[in-house]
Amino acid sequence: MSKVHLAKGMRDHLPQSMIHRQRVIATIQQVFARYGFEPLETPAMERIETLMGKYGEEGDKLVFKVLKRGEGEQRGEVDQALRYDLTVPLARVVAMNPQLVLPFKRYQIAPVWRADKPQKGRFREFYQCDVDTIGAPCGLADAECLAVAHDALSALGFTDFTIRLNDRRLLRALAIEIDAADRETDMLVAVDKLDKIGRDGVTAELSRRGFADAQIARLWELLDGAPIPGAEAAEATLAQVTELAVAMGVDPARLRIDRTLARGLDYYTGPVYEIVLEDGGVGTVTAGGRYDGLIGMFSGREIPAVGISLGLERLVVVMEERGMFADQATTTDVWVTVFSDDQLPASLAAVRAFRDAGVNAEVSLEPKKLGKQFKAADKRGVRWTVVIGPDEAAAGQVQLKDLRSGEGESLSLAAAVARVAGAQTDG
Amino acid sequence: MSKVHLAKGMRDHLPQSMIHRQRVIATIQQVFARYGFEPLETPAMERIETLMGKYGEEGDKLVFKVLKRGEGEQRGEVDQALRYDLTVPLARVVAMNPQLVLPFKRYQIAPVWRADKPQKGRFREFYQCDVDTIGAPCGLADAECLAVAHDALSALGFTDFTIRLNDRRLLRALAIEIDAADRETDMLVAVDKLDKIGRDGVTAELSRRGFADAQIARLWELLDGAPIPGAEAAEATLAQVTELAVAMGVDPARLRIDRTLARGLDYYTGPVYEIVLEDGGVGTVTAGGRYDGLIGMFSGREIPAVGISLGLERLVVVMEERGMFADQATTTDVWVTVFSDDQLPASLAAVRAFRDAGVNAEVSLEPKKLGKQFKAADKRGVRWTVVIGPDEAAAGQVQLKDLRSGEGESLSLAAAVARVAGAQTDG
Repeated sequence: MSKVHLAKGMRDHLPQSMIHRQRVIATIQQVFARYGFEPLETPAMERIETLMGKYGEEGDKLVFKVLKRGEGEQRGEVDQALRYDLTVPLARVVAMNPQLVLPFKRYQIAPVWRADKPQKGRFREFYQCDVDTIGAPCGLADAECLAVAHDALSALGFTDFTIRLNDRRLLRALAIEIDAADRETDMLVAVDKLDKIGRDGVTAELSRRGFADAQIARLWELLDGAPIPGAEAAEATLAQVTELAVAMGVDPARLRIDRTLARGLDYYTGPVYEIVLEDGGVGTVTAGGRYDGLIGMFSGREIPAVGISLGLERLVVVMEERGMFADQATTTDVWVTVFSDDQLPASLAAVRAFRDAGVNAEVSLEPKKLGKQFKAADKRGVRWTVVIGPDEAAAGQVQLKDLRSGEGESLSLAAAVARVAGAQTDG
Repeated sequence: MSKVHLAKGMRDHLPQSMIHRQRVIATIQQVFARYGFEPLETPAMERIETLMGKYGEEGDKLVFKVLKRGEGEQRGEVDQALRYDLTVPLARVVAMNPQLVLPFKRYQIAPVWRADKPQKGRFREFYQCDVDTIGAPCGLADAECLAVAHDALSALGFTDFTIRLNDRRLLRALAIEIDAADRETDMLVAVDKLDKIGRDGVTAELSRRGFADAQIARLWELLDGAPIPGAEAAEATLAQVTELAVAMGVDPARLRIDRTLARGLDYYTGPVYEIVLEDGGVGTVTAGGRYDGLIGMFSGREIPAVGISLGLERLVVVMEERGMFADQATTTDVWVTVFSDDQLPASLAAVRAFRDAGVNAEVSLEPKKLGKQFKAADKRGVRWTVVIGPDEAAAGQVQLKDLRSGEGESLSLAAAVARVAGAQTDG
């Protein structure tokens, strides 16, 4: 026997956690489909050249690389890598499938892998829940990203989120205005840290990066709301997207245009957005934007694109902390006990009747004393138990007990099945 | 622009294919839960030492290995690997979580990766749909594996499958009886090929592997049904498991005890089974067995275990070939057109009303001529379209058209929503 461990930064999701994750995924998926997004699945592995150079220098380092098979293995050569997000693989799919009718709206809910330094609450495997619209111009498609994320969060039960909205073209105009057109990325990287390091921190960082005091002072003026020459198109877009999002059902009180919102990824070209929970302590739970250049990197033809991504893990953590999940310990509704070897056929017939009626039902697999079977059912958190002893069998009855109320009664198997199936439907 | 490709042996699942895959997964998952199995998810990557030495020499070669990050990357060192199946990770989970209440019944539906030579219909990423029961002795738990697989295939609409059943202990007794106790694996490997190479082929293979003619002749006698000394316990188990499976609802006509069934994997210790489709041309769609030794390899304490696995891809291929899927081109029910910029708010209000009623609805994202919008809706395979022109708007009506029947009519938005939502419920 060797000591067993998980791989670094990985974790298992045991049933109790899976019940929560499945609930969140099902809800998000339903809202995605409601907006006309359709499912797509790309493989976990991509060619290494598909991924490299898309995520910036830091991102490239975090890509998990897979060893070649055969002779290359001995030489330590790599040819594939695990996907780092769901957006670059989507761009590859669009480039490889010219038959797709545009606009192409797809969702994908799937794990991605990043070799980040593991730390509390941060893992190397996590799920992204993405919708993207490929081939639609700026406007409705962008508003729809906000609306679908708004509805997904609302459907999960969140009521305290803010959608922050900006436009990369506005930030470019801003860089030009402070005479730093060639250092736009430096500026973005510094401003992007505002939430974490505050105004003084950003000012210090800009100084360190060689911005003059006058440039920094002017930058703050503009970030605080002074008119930005050359940002008219971006501002018109933001006003239009906001208006359309409200028409689609987004609560206007949740929308906030925020010039300081930068978003890290290189490939954004127009509106960018993120959604933060107030008092969440987890920061951003959703982010996205328009990336009109990425698909052209693969296909040669420029195709506009916009998308938004919800992070499963952060949502689940907050929902668990806030008690937003119904108290459900198990997906199993009924535990059918086995009174004795003689009564086993009756118990098997009973469990089968529950299952045939669509009820999740378990039968004791290792017939022990009845008390132990009840204890096992209770430990699992099952609501109902069934006993069929010789007396019940002779009378054509079963004993059904509701562990939630503590009430039990003898009734026919058909009536017991109807009772439990009915309680399910009532919620 | 560089030419874009998928990684070798990988593929994308476009929406049309995903609709089928999601349907199959949802059905299987529902049946798994109905039997009281609960969801578990293990990470895609495991430590390399967790996987190595579990799948035989050939299997080890097919494991995808992941490069170390940091300095190890330069040296081509590996420390992790992609999971090869869902059973070994489960054994690790059980060993690492002594708090789990036994029997522990879990399902996992997830991709696994094997660096097999890609060929028609065989990919390097594929889904396994597994149920396993950990900590229950041989008997009910084994029968339940057969019953849950039987019900899953039936729920998918299959009516022509056969469950083949054998016991590894019977094969061991058989090896002893032909005086080849030390060459049991050689014997199993040859017999396992019976379906592919026939009796003569197996005989030739056994000769090549050094079995004497008398041994081979005796082997065929035993495989054909002659009594096997020392196989009494295995035969009693097979009779018992068969009887219990029938009591759980398995059609007895589907069950066939078959002494030639070997199953490749090293770790089986008791009953083994596989399910084949008649006329499927795809061979085995489901396989499993009892593996009482595997968990002990990780935890030091022997814990009995049994499981069964359905292969998603083969099932989907056969179901597509047989036309077993409802003809559904898209998950979207309604396409709301945009008559003109002036009418956009009315169309957005309409699409919102459909979505709020739980109908999957799409609005044209790039308002073009109405004819083009209809064409797009038709291409997608959407059933219903909605038009709101100035006349309809003035009259408080919408035009709803059923592209399936070709019928259209003007009615209030609320009535249109009710009509479509009602049609959904009716199927």
